[in-house]
Amino acid sequence: MRRNEDLTLHTDKYQINMMYAHWKNGTANKRCVFEAFYRKNPFGNGYAVFAGLERIVYYLQQLKFTDADINYLRQQEEQYDEGFLQELHAFRFTGNLACVEEGTIVFPREPLIRVEARIFEAHLIETALLNFMNYQTLIATKAARIKQVAPEDYFLEFGTRRAQESDAAIWGARAAYLAGFDATSNLLSGKYFDIPTKGTHAHSWVQSFESEEEAFRMFTEALPDQSTLLVDTYDTLKSGIPNAIKIGLELKKKGKALKGIRLDSGDLAYLSIKARAMLDEAGLTDTVIVASNDLDEDVISELKSQGARINVWGVGTQLITSAEQPALGGVYKLVAREEDGVYVPTIKISGNVEKVTTPGFKTVYRIINQESGKAEADYIAMEDEMLPEKDLYLFDPVDTYKSKTIHSFKAQKLLISIFENGKLVYKLPHVEEIKVHFKQQKQLFWPEHMRKLNPQTYFVDLSEQVWSTKMELLKAASFKQKK
Amino acid sequence: MRRNEDLTLHTDKYQINMMYAHWKNGTANKRCVFEAFYRKNPFGNGYAVFAGLERIVYYLQQLKFTDADINYLRQQEEQYDEGFLQELHAFRFTGNLACVEEGTIVFPREPLIRVEARIFEAHLIETALLNFMNYQTLIATKAARIKQVAPEDYFLEFGTRRAQESDAAIWGARAAYLAGFDATSNLLSGKYFDIPTKGTHAHSWVQSFESEEEAFRMFTEALPDQSTLLVDTYDTLKSGIPNAIKIGLELKKKGKALKGIRLDSGDLAYLSIKARAMLDEAGLTDTVIVASNDLDEDVISELKSQGARINVWGVGTQLITSAEQPALGGVYKLVAREEDGVYVPTIKISGNVEKVTTPGFKTVYRIINQESGKAEADYIAMEDEMLPEKDLYLFDPVDTYKSKTIHSFKAQKLLISIFENGKLVYKLPHVEEIKVHFKQQKQLFWPEHMRKLNPQTYFVDLSEQVWSTKMELLKAASFKQKK
Repeated sequence: MRRNEDLTLHTDKYQINMMYAHWKNGTANKRCVFEAFYRKNPFGNGYAVFAGLERIVYYLQQLKFTDADINYLRQQEEQYDEGFLQELHAFRFTGNLACVEEGTIVFPREPLIRVEARIFEAHLIETALLNFMNYQTLIATKAARIKQVAPEDYFLEFGTRRAQESDAAIWGARAAYLAGFDATSNLLSGKYFDIPTKGTHAHSWVQSFESEEEAFRMFTEALPDQSTLLVDTYDTLKSGIPNAIKIGLELKKKGKALKGIRLDSGDLAYLSIKARAMLDEAGLTDTVIVASNDLDEDVISELKSQGARINVWGVGTQLITSAEQPALGGVYKLVAREEDGVYVPTIKISGNVEKVTTPGFKTVYRIINQESGKAEADYIAMEDEMLPEKDLYLFDPVDTYKSKTIHSFKAQKLLISIFENGKLVYKLPHVEEIKVHFKQQKQLFWPEHMRKLNPQTYFVDLSEQVWSTKMELLKAASFKQKK
Repeated sequence: MRRNEDLTLHTDKYQINMMYAHWKNGTANKRCVFEAFYRKNPFGNGYAVFAGLERIVYYLQQLKFTDADINYLRQQEEQYDEGFLQELHAFRFTGNLACVEEGTIVFPREPLIRVEARIFEAHLIETALLNFMNYQTLIATKAARIKQVAPEDYFLEFGTRRAQESDAAIWGARAAYLAGFDATSNLLSGKYFDIPTKGTHAHSWVQSFESEEEAFRMFTEALPDQSTLLVDTYDTLKSGIPNAIKIGLELKKKGKALKGIRLDSGDLAYLSIKARAMLDEAGLTDTVIVASNDLDEDVISELKSQGARINVWGVGTQLITSAEQPALGGVYKLVAREEDGVYVPTIKISGNVEKVTTPGFKTVYRIINQESGKAEADYIAMEDEMLPEKDLYLFDPVDTYKSKTIHSFKAQKLLISIFENGKLVYKLPHVEEIKVHFKQQKQLFWPEHMRKLNPQTYFVDLSEQVWSTKMELLKAASFKQKK
């Protein structure tokens, strides 16, 4: 799938202003390094699931200013020189982009996307990169969290009508699928990404017939091999389930089977237990129970603890909008800039220590303990730094006295090269491969980092070189302020 | 602007299943009436601001199944007859659609969109219509609420990087603009809809130079007529503002002016008061103060009550994701179906009285009291019902003893005809016209319905005919259940 969207102007105006100011000042071709990361896991979760790379690849490939774009900028801003606008005609992304693979489990404050490019190019793409990464990573994380409370059950993404416009529905369904959901209701997402699609019927189907029984019969006659009947249009226990059972028995006589019933209101624990008993008593033991109605991981977890007999969960609003926290808050920060042909690390200071950036042209490793096979920590080092063969010294970047040494380890590089000099050097995996990758990722971590409530913090440590670079820049900045 | 997107499969699979079942059963051409409405105002607000119509018009105009769409459906579902798939080739929207105009103030449980069409067509479009209406109406409502706390100030929509994917950023910026915002940072939205765009610069601009002072000077040299300098990269009071003042004085000497400074962290009340004093003391009285950093209507309201000297508010995440409540929850319900050539009203029962639908092919009027010029109530009547010339009797649809009679009134029809027999009969207004329409709408209502906290409920009443139709169907349904 490839969406040929024209998204070059899907950026903040200040990016174009900065590009212009660099062009005007002769600094547009200076190279620089930006990192995208987030500061805090969403929902009190112990991790996030990275997503958004496929979208980023398509975006960078389509990047060019059309004549219409340039005319628009000319009208919008009289201050732009014509020479600058001409320069935009030739604009292409010619930089290097490294990125974590989709489906990878990631943590706060580590680089997820790294752009090394002319500052002219690196500015333009910030907004769209963050827009895609922030939303898709958020939804993948939420989906993983929901799936986790009922790993054996089947999960449907049902949220399109409540999504924040169409891209959110389409890309959100994909993010949910790669992190553990089993299907979506959105056909366009299904078509684009080759994701299974599922659907039942609406209340309006029932209302469009004289009686519920007639409506159920008509539906199963048309689609005898997949019918799931929605049983709450009039009265679930008195009308919906008895009518569904009648139809189920008719189907059985014809050698077919009623696949499921769907509960969409009321007390889902009580109704599902009742429904299971009624279906079983009628001999419809294979008919599954689907539930929907504002579900999330907490509601599902509660329902399960109350013995709900639900096999399939249709999750809408709470997943597709990530209602509990609808933005990830990922940022894109300058970490190094070219000065006389070499990279100089840069820092952004803040009164809030969490917001001080970590300077330098860096990379990130996942340190796997060879003895346990489990991930011990993520380790941020300079890109050109050599890791020791064994005995890696890890220390907390704030409380530095907390430290340990891993004797035997494997260091996995998390940032993969995606674009080199503007050329795509990465083969985008199919979403099924991403799903497998995510499942493998989950095996890498101790359960205490993965649990829903109060997970143990997983360490993201800095190499001594990175740490001391940061300390030096902090000192220098504080010295500058005192002057 | 016209986005030529191919969104026909941007729908739930159950819509296609129901279309198929109707086709198979010979009921696809039966006409029906659906209404889209929402049940509860978001954020405890007293009203919502309708938006989404322009998007809906483009969507219905592009609606057709491509060969690729049909091939996809053929692969997805072996149960679909080939005859059905061939029927989809000829699919166009041929129905009637009436809708509230964008920028209109609306209330719970009144029809905002009404579709009268073959049931085959009415099913397909449900998902996308709700997706567009739900999101855009939500954002317009949030924007109106934010603007309301500082009606004289200037508001910038800054949320693209935190939006839920690109459509949300682009259409959300438009929704915010029509409901009171003054500009957006998103250039694509600006280009598509002819909305003013604004931008300053990022921390990375400052970091990419040796010193903050140099960075500020370079920026204002490039863009001398619009520079707003971000002052919190290193230290707002000790470094950022003094450097901005230095540059402002240099500009002044050249006959130019520093347009603004931007605060993006820290205590915005304290810092803005300090900044105003420092700027004024330096003679830069015209330099405005822009603030950003997770603002919403409550934070802005608090800052204003603390005497913050902020003129321009940049609002991001809280607006563009409507973080407090990220989904409107609008629904699309069957209210009438054709039976032997006439429309029969239909109802959906629910244990929750709020969820019982109001049957019938209806319309909605805004009742303006001729004496006060203010809106007294909205009034839902059957489409073919005649309103009295004077002395309109209004009663509460639940507590029917609460009633009043309006002697002299004007009844404004809120549902405007948009498509007739599939043909667009409505001229889409420019967003500036919608902005004016919204301002006029605000004048129609008493302040008690418009206030942010605990607004007085505005009445949406039913005509006696609509009310008695609902009561009869409720009785009939309860009788059916007892059988």
